[in-house]
Amino acid sequence: MTPSPFPIIRLRPKAQARAIRHGFPWVYDNELVTDRRSKALTPGTIAQLEDAERTPVALVAVNPKSRIIARVLERDCTARIDADWLRQRLTQALVLRDRLYDAPFYRLVHAEADGLPGVIIDRFGDTAVIQPNAAWAETLLGDLTDAVMAVTGVKNVLKNASGRARVLEGLDDQNAVLRGQAPSAPLPVPMNGATYMADLVGGQKTGLFFDQRPNHAFAAGLSRGARVLDVFSHVGGFSLAALAGGADQAMAVDGSQAALDLATEGAAQMGLGERFSTRKGDAFEALAQLAEEGAQFDVVICDPPAFAPSKKAVEAGLRAYERVARMAAALVADGGYLGLCSCSHAVDLARFRGASVRGIGRAGRQAQLIHTGFAGPDHPLHPQLAESGYLKALFFRLR
Amino acid sequence: MTPSPFPIIRLRPKAQARAIRHGFPWVYDNELVTDRRSKALTPGTIAQLEDAERTPVALVAVNPKSRIIARVLERDCTARIDADWLRQRLTQALVLRDRLYDAPFYRLVHAEADGLPGVIIDRFGDTAVIQPNAAWAETLLGDLTDAVMAVTGVKNVLKNASGRARVLEGLDDQNAVLRGQAPSAPLPVPMNGATYMADLVGGQKTGLFFDQRPNHAFAAGLSRGARVLDVFSHVGGFSLAALAGGADQAMAVDGSQAALDLATEGAAQMGLGERFSTRKGDAFEALAQLAEEGAQFDVVICDPPAFAPSKKAVEAGLRAYERVARMAAALVADGGYLGLCSCSHAVDLARFRGASVRGIGRAGRQAQLIHTGFAGPDHPLHPQLAESGYLKALFFRLR
Repeated sequence: MTPSPFPIIRLRPKAQARAIRHGFPWVYDNELVTDRRSKALTPGTIAQLEDAERTPVALVAVNPKSRIIARVLERDCTARIDADWLRQRLTQALVLRDRLYDAPFYRLVHAEADGLPGVIIDRFGDTAVIQPNAAWAETLLGDLTDAVMAVTGVKNVLKNASGRARVLEGLDDQNAVLRGQAPSAPLPVPMNGATYMADLVGGQKTGLFFDQRPNHAFAAGLSRGARVLDVFSHVGGFSLAALAGGADQAMAVDGSQAALDLATEGAAQMGLGERFSTRKGDAFEALAQLAEEGAQFDVVICDPPAFAPSKKAVEAGLRAYERVARMAAALVADGGYLGLCSCSHAVDLARFRGASVRGIGRAGRQAQLIHTGFAGPDHPLHPQLAESGYLKALFFRLR
Repeated sequence: MTPSPFPIIRLRPKAQARAIRHGFPWVYDNELVTDRRSKALTPGTIAQLEDAERTPVALVAVNPKSRIIARVLERDCTARIDADWLRQRLTQALVLRDRLYDAPFYRLVHAEADGLPGVIIDRFGDTAVIQPNAAWAETLLGDLTDAVMAVTGVKNVLKNASGRARVLEGLDDQNAVLRGQAPSAPLPVPMNGATYMADLVGGQKTGLFFDQRPNHAFAAGLSRGARVLDVFSHVGGFSLAALAGGADQAMAVDGSQAALDLATEGAAQMGLGERFSTRKGDAFEALAQLAEEGAQFDVVICDPPAFAPSKKAVEAGLRAYERVARMAAALVADGGYLGLCSCSHAVDLARFRGASVRGIGRAGRQAQLIHTGFAGPDHPLHPQLAESGYLKALFFRLR
């Protein structure tokens, strides 16, 4: 056997090589023999992981600074992590999305679950936006970019460096145009019959969130002839889907005028601008104000930012989710629908549901839970990291 | 205040009247003052529940033989539980289904969540099938039947008395034609573009399971041009949806020849009989045999009966789910899809997912979890009984 071209790192005697062999994708720092040599590895170094008996286990990307000290790239230790390998992974990712969607607008790569740890790639027609949130991918960014172009045929590739994980990996926060050019104007993105305007350069994250697609669709199915309120609307995710589903009127509430302008432009492109209105401001204040005005809606959806971005913030986050539920429930007409979403990793489905139900109860309303949804299938989960299912959407009918 | 026309039952001093007032629908036997009089109440008696201070809390249906000794019917204690009241509840239920579906084929009433504890009503066009699985509903069955006809316009109402809960309620197991007549032949039921043949008289439960509708739709979306295997198929739930979604070939496996005959008839009615085949027999044996034959499928779905029908059966049930996953995974082509379902109340989502992932791993396959689904929105959940979400469907892509 030829020696591995990669540096070797080794599991401690009692560490779970078996878990890795059964597909677990992470090695924690307390499972590894850490010596001067392993600690000196540059974040992103590709190494061969061995068990305590020196049998190769997997090729991994190492980050000595992280509690997750190594992430599995490939269980075949004879593989090479090169342009070919990247093309294979991207092709597997593309085949799934081609099957799922009629148009090339989707999350193409969802990190570990697509076999590319820490890498997020969103596709908007002939433009791809890469978030290389792991050092190994930053190192191979040229090859990755070439592979994305070769596999998908996109003409433009942008780098979005706003991910918080990049700091831990010792990476900068500089966005860049990697190939082709950045779109000079917001791009129209078709989803669920609606048109969303995505600002790939100035917008949040990669300009548009694809993860809510099935939940948008569910809301749209409730919205025929309805008055719809979309709170924390960003570029109009739920409100434009509702208009596409036949809503009579839709109002979007958001703190960002830029996001609301994009939503308005989307409604106009759909030819439904007259049915669409916006209200800029703090969502809680807007909810209170609408209640004061005696406003009522047939469908209300709240899709707030992560109120519990960490485990420490769980209790405060749950109180915020309960408050949203209570204030939003007060605006739902008798027999109407309330959609409540959470994208907090740290709040699981049961606790989010509990906070939502408490809030609805405190508004004096009775409810049926008619639907529980998650992120769409272009956001697959690694089966052994199913807790990474961060997005939850609950739809209630209220009396 | 006029005295209640209903017998009075009373909560113990420390019992949670607050929980009931906040919407919890059940009273457990240890929360109630049980004396000779309350113990003598006939199962199904409608009573007024009071708190320890003798303040009315709710109107309830009592069953002194059950650990759930009372189920809340109505929180307004001045209400009358009569034909009008039943019509109101049914109208609320109908409005939801009218909004959700284009054709009148759905679960119309899903027990507690629709405000009618223990009552299941499925609608098949102009025929309704009532499962009065609670004594109070059996007592009011004439009114309930009239109300169903008045609200929905159905012409035929059947009673299905096969529910296991009926024994506990002291009820018989005699099916009956309550109004109109029983269909003389299996009825065609449209769902997701497929046609299912429902045998409302001789079939399982109410002849067809509506609960898997959204999961059928998800499988159909994966099945264009695919070879599809539907294990535990009943009348062809997943296989006929897959054919409607453009599957090249679909095979249904079930232990019941009657169910397979209905599936075959459905495929024929769809004009796709040539793409459909069946295999009668034990599912585990069929899976083993197909593996021996070297059969491969692009989409495999397994929708077994509840392997863990009670808490005692959880461990054995999990082993059975793992075994199904392992045997089915072996038949999935590279890059193909595996759908695994559980309708065991006692096995929660995390444990079912764990068993499924172990089985897939033991088959030597790697997986992405692309979708988690539940029962459709015509099977709403009472928000405080969300554990009653018995149905879980997981879709994996395998390498």
